[in-house]
Amino acid sequence: MKLAVIGAGAVGRSVVELAGEHGHEVVAVADSSTAVVADGADGRGGDAVGVDPDAVVARKAERGIVGDDDPEDALAADYDVLVEATPTTLGDAEPGFSHVTTALERDRHAVLANKGPVAERFGDLRAAVDDSDGDIRFEATVGGAIPAVSTVEDIEPGHVTAVRGVLNGTANFILTRMAAEGLDYDHVLAEAQDLGVAEADPSFDVDGTDAALKCVILANVLSFGAVDDPADAREFTLDDADVSGIRDVPGSALRLAAEDGQTVRLIGEATGETVRVAPRLVPENGTLAVSGTQNIVQIETSHAGRLNISGRGAGGPETASAVLGDVGRLE
Amino acid sequence: MKLAVIGAGAVGRSVVELAGEHGHEVVAVADSSTAVVADGADGRGGDAVGVDPDAVVARKAERGIVGDDDPEDALAADYDVLVEATPTTLGDAEPGFSHVTTALERDRHAVLANKGPVAERFGDLRAAVDDSDGDIRFEATVGGAIPAVSTVEDIEPGHVTAVRGVLNGTANFILTRMAAEGLDYDHVLAEAQDLGVAEADPSFDVDGTDAALKCVILANVLSFGAVDDPADAREFTLDDADVSGIRDVPGSALRLAAEDGQTVRLIGEATGETVRVAPRLVPENGTLAVSGTQNIVQIETSHAGRLNISGRGAGGPETASAVLGDVGRLE
Repeated sequence: MKLAVIGAGAVGRSVVELAGEHGHEVVAVADSSTAVVADGADGRGGDAVGVDPDAVVARKAERGIVGDDDPEDALAADYDVLVEATPTTLGDAEPGFSHVTTALERDRHAVLANKGPVAERFGDLRAAVDDSDGDIRFEATVGGAIPAVSTVEDIEPGHVTAVRGVLNGTANFILTRMAAEGLDYDHVLAEAQDLGVAEADPSFDVDGTDAALKCVILANVLSFGAVDDPADAREFTLDDADVSGIRDVPGSALRLAAEDGQTVRLIGEATGETVRVAPRLVPENGTLAVSGTQNIVQIETSHAGRLNISGRGAGGPETASAVLGDVGRLE
Repeated sequence: MKLAVIGAGAVGRSVVELAGEHGHEVVAVADSSTAVVADGADGRGGDAVGVDPDAVVARKAERGIVGDDDPEDALAADYDVLVEATPTTLGDAEPGFSHVTTALERDRHAVLANKGPVAERFGDLRAAVDDSDGDIRFEATVGGAIPAVSTVEDIEPGHVTAVRGVLNGTANFILTRMAAEGLDYDHVLAEAQDLGVAEADPSFDVDGTDAALKCVILANVLSFGAVDDPADAREFTLDDADVSGIRDVPGSALRLAAEDGQTVRLIGEATGETVRVAPRLVPENGTLAVSGTQNIVQIETSHAGRLNISGRGAGGPETASAVLGDVGRLE
């Protein structure tokens, strides 16, 4: 498949680097202000040979640009699948939302790593897909390398009663270190920032917003998947989520929990009716008590009991792996 | 999709009972000597309305038959997907193998819960698929409700370096109970048989054959998935597996292991080169030490680290869930 990769952050760059290994060709790449479009994909004739992945990534690293073209040229290029990997934005979820609808209006597919459109405008996305020959997939928006969305799809959302888990590696790393070392939140946050596990402004992760967006996406999948007519589905957005983060978890809570063989994890849960994210007591050696930056998704099913899937929830190559898995499913 | 369900054991009956919930219709069911074919699917005209699932299951329970037709009538019926759920046989994997090729020769699809053809004649199956407009899927042959095969497919076999896990619930139940209660193998085997977790002749499970067949299937998926030309792939059969079971694991081994925070599990591992099943020491609280009849599949990937998927590895509804997931993927 020919890919237009919109977004040249860690995920976009990893998709550019790994696409070839999966048998796909990158014909266009865009960051927020520049683009590169391969000859042949630019509508001016010629054979499409794809961009040079290493050159594009190097150019971005050295000069901060991906090419001399304009992002509009990437959106207009001759691609099969548009990969939306720009930063998550809330509310109107722009510009990511319009990147996706542009692809669908051209009867192309879109694969999202950007949570914004899927969490905040699921109904609008569904309508755009219904009017298009193209389709969307968004495995990479939930749990990185963990195949959460496709597993729920295969079991069928009508047969999934709940999905819960540890969905943010930054918060989980902090809680794991607090428990392991008996340290307070501020101390461990500083350590996490030094390691690059937490951002300079960590709120998106530690306040539970990132985990909540993922749960909102899962709730939308469950809700829309359980009905035949999208008009009958309840649509979720971040506003519907009941969210508490980890800033106020004191070290003493973890020490007390440990005396009872328990610990604390930031757990997100989605059903077709509710979305909740909060720190919760879990058994210390239990399935939900994954360590460090690991994520786990626990799927409750009607006929097949509980499935647990754990793995790396974030990272360029991990998320790119999920994106390229989705591209493969669209072939 | 219209399904012909060949095999009326626990899995076949569960598929018959659950197909309607997934939006599919059962048009024929066969056991080893009888069949029922719905009006309209029998080639004599009329609208296909599907068999009555409850009636078929009741008839099998009360009279030991599914209907007054002949199994050949089910194979000849007008179906979209043949579900092969007859007992696993080794070597030539008949009659299951021929059920599948009959469907493919008619350009229909086949979904297998029967491990025999996939473990013992993978190359022949691939050739039959290549000559057909139909396709095969076999998620239900490995790990019951756990989406092992489709997850490996989505990551792409060329990017999976190994798959390992606890793949037999009977053996795992026995080892879990031996460790928990300090009892010997014979005692716990008797308990397992009373509970219906182990068969009267438990060898298939406790000797590691069942786990080995699942690993052989995974090795075939990895091997054939890593090359473009099937002629270049190494084909695995049960003979290629290096297999040790749990009959000779003494209670003392588990007690010694526990002193070190470890326990024993029957672990199967497949790469594109080797298949091994043996009892192994694993950390007591570690990921591989699932309890009771649970299964776990651990997938090592090139770019996305390790994925762990645990859940119910067996059971009528659980396995039927995997079969119906495969039917959905064929639509």
